[in-house]
Amino acid sequence: MKKSDIVIIGGVAAGPKTACCLARRLQNASITLYQREDIVSYAGCGLPYFASGDIESFDSLLTTGYGVRRDKAFFAESKGVDVITGAEIVSIDRASKTVTVRMLKTGETFEHKYGKLVIATGSVPKKPLFPVETSDRIRTFTRPDDAIAFRKAAQTGKIGKVVIVGAGLIGCEVAEAAAGLWGIETVVLEKEKQILPYALDADMAAIAEREMKRKGVEILTSVDIDRISLQYETPVIELHGGSRLACDYVILCLGVRPEVSLAKACGLQIGVRGGILVDSHMMTSDPNIYAGGDCVESYHRTTGSYIYMPMGSLANKHGRVIAENLAGVPTEFKGTFGSFIVKIFDMNVGSVGITHKLADTIGYRAETVWGTFPDKPDYFPEFKIYSLKMVYASDDGRILGLQAVGEGDVCRRIDVFSALLQKGGTVDDLLNFEHCYAPPYSEALDPMHHLGAMAVAQTRGVQFAAPDCKPVDGSLLIDLRERSEAVAEPMPVGSGYEISVIPLGELRSRLADLDKSRRTYVICRRGPRAYQAAIALRNEGFSDVYVVGGGVQAARL
Amino acid sequence: MKKSDIVIIGGVAAGPKTACCLARRLQNASITLYQREDIVSYAGCGLPYFASGDIESFDSLLTTGYGVRRDKAFFAESKGVDVITGAEIVSIDRASKTVTVRMLKTGETFEHKYGKLVIATGSVPKKPLFPVETSDRIRTFTRPDDAIAFRKAAQTGKIGKVVIVGAGLIGCEVAEAAAGLWGIETVVLEKEKQILPYALDADMAAIAEREMKRKGVEILTSVDIDRISLQYETPVIELHGGSRLACDYVILCLGVRPEVSLAKACGLQIGVRGGILVDSHMMTSDPNIYAGGDCVESYHRTTGSYIYMPMGSLANKHGRVIAENLAGVPTEFKGTFGSFIVKIFDMNVGSVGITHKLADTIGYRAETVWGTFPDKPDYFPEFKIYSLKMVYASDDGRILGLQAVGEGDVCRRIDVFSALLQKGGTVDDLLNFEHCYAPPYSEALDPMHHLGAMAVAQTRGVQFAAPDCKPVDGSLLIDLRERSEAVAEPMPVGSGYEISVIPLGELRSRLADLDKSRRTYVICRRGPRAYQAAIALRNEGFSDVYVVGGGVQAARL
Repeated sequence: MKKSDIVIIGGVAAGPKTACCLARRLQNASITLYQREDIVSYAGCGLPYFASGDIESFDSLLTTGYGVRRDKAFFAESKGVDVITGAEIVSIDRASKTVTVRMLKTGETFEHKYGKLVIATGSVPKKPLFPVETSDRIRTFTRPDDAIAFRKAAQTGKIGKVVIVGAGLIGCEVAEAAAGLWGIETVVLEKEKQILPYALDADMAAIAEREMKRKGVEILTSVDIDRISLQYETPVIELHGGSRLACDYVILCLGVRPEVSLAKACGLQIGVRGGILVDSHMMTSDPNIYAGGDCVESYHRTTGSYIYMPMGSLANKHGRVIAENLAGVPTEFKGTFGSFIVKIFDMNVGSVGITHKLADTIGYRAETVWGTFPDKPDYFPEFKIYSLKMVYASDDGRILGLQAVGEGDVCRRIDVFSALLQKGGTVDDLLNFEHCYAPPYSEALDPMHHLGAMAVAQTRGVQFAAPDCKPVDGSLLIDLRERSEAVAEPMPVGSGYEISVIPLGELRSRLADLDKSRRTYVICRRGPRAYQAAIALRNEGFSDVYVVGGGVQAARL
Repeated sequence: MKKSDIVIIGGVAAGPKTACCLARRLQNASITLYQREDIVSYAGCGLPYFASGDIESFDSLLTTGYGVRRDKAFFAESKGVDVITGAEIVSIDRASKTVTVRMLKTGETFEHKYGKLVIATGSVPKKPLFPVETSDRIRTFTRPDDAIAFRKAAQTGKIGKVVIVGAGLIGCEVAEAAAGLWGIETVVLEKEKQILPYALDADMAAIAEREMKRKGVEILTSVDIDRISLQYETPVIELHGGSRLACDYVILCLGVRPEVSLAKACGLQIGVRGGILVDSHMMTSDPNIYAGGDCVESYHRTTGSYIYMPMGSLANKHGRVIAENLAGVPTEFKGTFGSFIVKIFDMNVGSVGITHKLADTIGYRAETVWGTFPDKPDYFPEFKIYSLKMVYASDDGRILGLQAVGEGDVCRRIDVFSALLQKGGTVDDLLNFEHCYAPPYSEALDPMHHLGAMAVAQTRGVQFAAPDCKPVDGSLLIDLRERSEAVAEPMPVGSGYEISVIPLGELRSRLADLDKSRRTYVICRRGPRAYQAAIALRNEGFSDVYVVGGGVQAARL
């Protein structure tokens, strides 16, 4: 029987982080970390970028920034942590505070007594709801082996065509890896109506979807798969309805679920989202057991309910919180705002807080504004644009969520919004936010300011329509752009409504020709002119004015 | 006698912004804007980038993003605002609510009656405290003419050597323009001991100063100028002590002061910083007169006192606030956190809140932590680093200020910190901040998290020393880097203290050799190893441990 003060199960992110923080805090504690795989403390989020070739060597995912490999010796010497790899935990006996360990290579089993136990067992890929034949050409994409296998096959020219099943974050990252660097013919299948279905509203996802298509990725949404079979060695995806898709390689990106089998077996409480339920101190229903990382579910700070949010960033924070509590300093993990970002070819796609769809689902009365912005003044060379969608509460103006898509600096806006969300920010706080300003970095007025001003305008009767709205029959859509712009960047055109090109500078003189009671949409290139015109039209007595959010650069009418 | 509901004096930023917002809000108001120069609503902050050639054409600073020139016709047709250029306001008569206007070309004068008056007269260059001879080779850098003249002289090869007097924000921007693009021999003179003396603490300014020197700019600090004379046509800077500096061109970047002569003459209250004093609604001491932009002083939200902060970003916000109030909706401008950013060659330099120096000056008890971070995981190609310095209150842990210098994404960190500052954030909020994480954008733990963790460690006895600290005599400085790193990037070395190279992995085994009561400094490449080692050393009973903030990559011991 072995014995340690602290036993940790799991060695990717939350486990090693807990171990290292704790070893610093409690110099004399004995800490043992068990890891099923042979490698430990690897940068799992880097796998898509190893697969793409952006990251040259797999070893760099296992190495500190100063070139030392994070292996058993590293943890022993630098950190004073005993790491045992190739070791599976068979069971947890909470009464005797003992785990049973089985060494995978030798089959040897033994017991290990703990003072406190930390479960960081991570996640496992979700099982497909359709039959899938076994082949090394049909894989998930969650473990290092998956990334190594894909890259090897891509590098040696074995993949002419790949099908990626699932257009979530990992599916999109892998699609870029396949089509972008390796030039592989890439098809993405998604059962929902849009890519990133649980992360973005449809109108914002559409912008990212257009980017993927522009870069040559074929995307099929609302697709039901009956089975994935093999014809000789070729994977064939059989779709509901009868069509078949043959390819050289299939990657199943169906998402992951928390790995809770050990926790369940020993009777720990499991939450509504299937993850281990922990309190704000990351303590499970057993006060001697803590849990963190991808095996737990998280409190969502906007909705007040639980979500499953498997993110390396949260796992690392969990690690510190667990270590502090184990070191005797009560410390809280306050939950998540569901923040994420993903690179889709040249576009940055991110969100924090809740989408409008989620607000509707949980019954929040929410309003939305949209805008497209350059990330520096447009007189400055090489500015890039992005489209923002902001959701806020109808009753008290508190901000609820931001979605951002585009080539510009999406990351900064998501992070700033997250900081304001965290502190209970309101539309008024957006107007008062002070960004750092110089032309190489930003415009004189930050997009947060513009979003705030649009929300205020909305309370005064200017309405905003989604970039993918369908103007109602009989309505008028005024294109406020200069005629040269309208020629250079034609507007997507639907039917059932009238379009009139009236450059903003001519609007005042044309007011008399317009019907004030008719539903009127205004659109420009990015949004500001339309928003200005809408305020003016309202003040002139137009009763039913909509700004098409984000302008022509976001729109798909 | 002319008459308008609203008369606005000044046509660069706050003036036009007020006019446009108000014209939208009050459709039938008559609005007149007087501007002394022939051009109106130009992007003044873009001037250094026009001078450098980054911005090709001056016209782009006068043009909307959609290619329409912001001239009198534009304001009349698009906005319904009457703009009169080449017009100087001679005086304001508050009793009769009348301004007297003089047309600069014709000399004609007339009176104009207002309902409400908006003063946005901007700033003027500070006068040098030493005599300066008149020459077209000795100029300030505040107006379009200045930028045009410099660029013309640079472009035609007339400037072999330039001397820039003053190393504030504009001085640094202009130094980059001269040395960077035009390859001109550039000397910067600063009377204080450091560059950016009112914006950064000395240790952070030193990092930016090293960058300027690396790029070939000569910087002389603590310099007193006796006079700037002409020898034939050559400008000569005569320094106190007798040395003389001849050059082809002198740019005086001594800062600006609020242009308040009109306001003063009509008896409006002037504040402690010399700007027009306004309340939070931007109203002056006369309820019929509002003021905004560079002619007013601002309430500093961290210190609670007034500062002078001439920034285009604030001016634009002032404009909206003034317009809302004039439209009858009470709206506040809540003040500033003094946020700025400046590009100095390949480095981004920014700050928000207060420096440690300012905290000392106003008697705040403040603590400081430093760290150097990569802006994405260092296994990711092309990450860049930056050094952060965070100041927080000793008593309650509320955050007070952040300074950031480096090639990495400084802007994002300043903006996030600004958002947390705005909402009264604390060290605990830094630990709970949720950034958006994916390897192309960020590390799993955000620098805000690390700064928070360092501040917590500091409350537990780990002390932080500035990157430019001088270890006390007899102390030990432990270089925790791998030996290969120490060879590749040698550490700056002072005298009076002992240096010992002990890679972090060997520290545990070497503890017995070390004297626990000796003042011990620890340093690594960027800070994390030193911070971890310091926690461990404290727990081992070392009584006097200092982390050298920011590591070798920030340090100048």
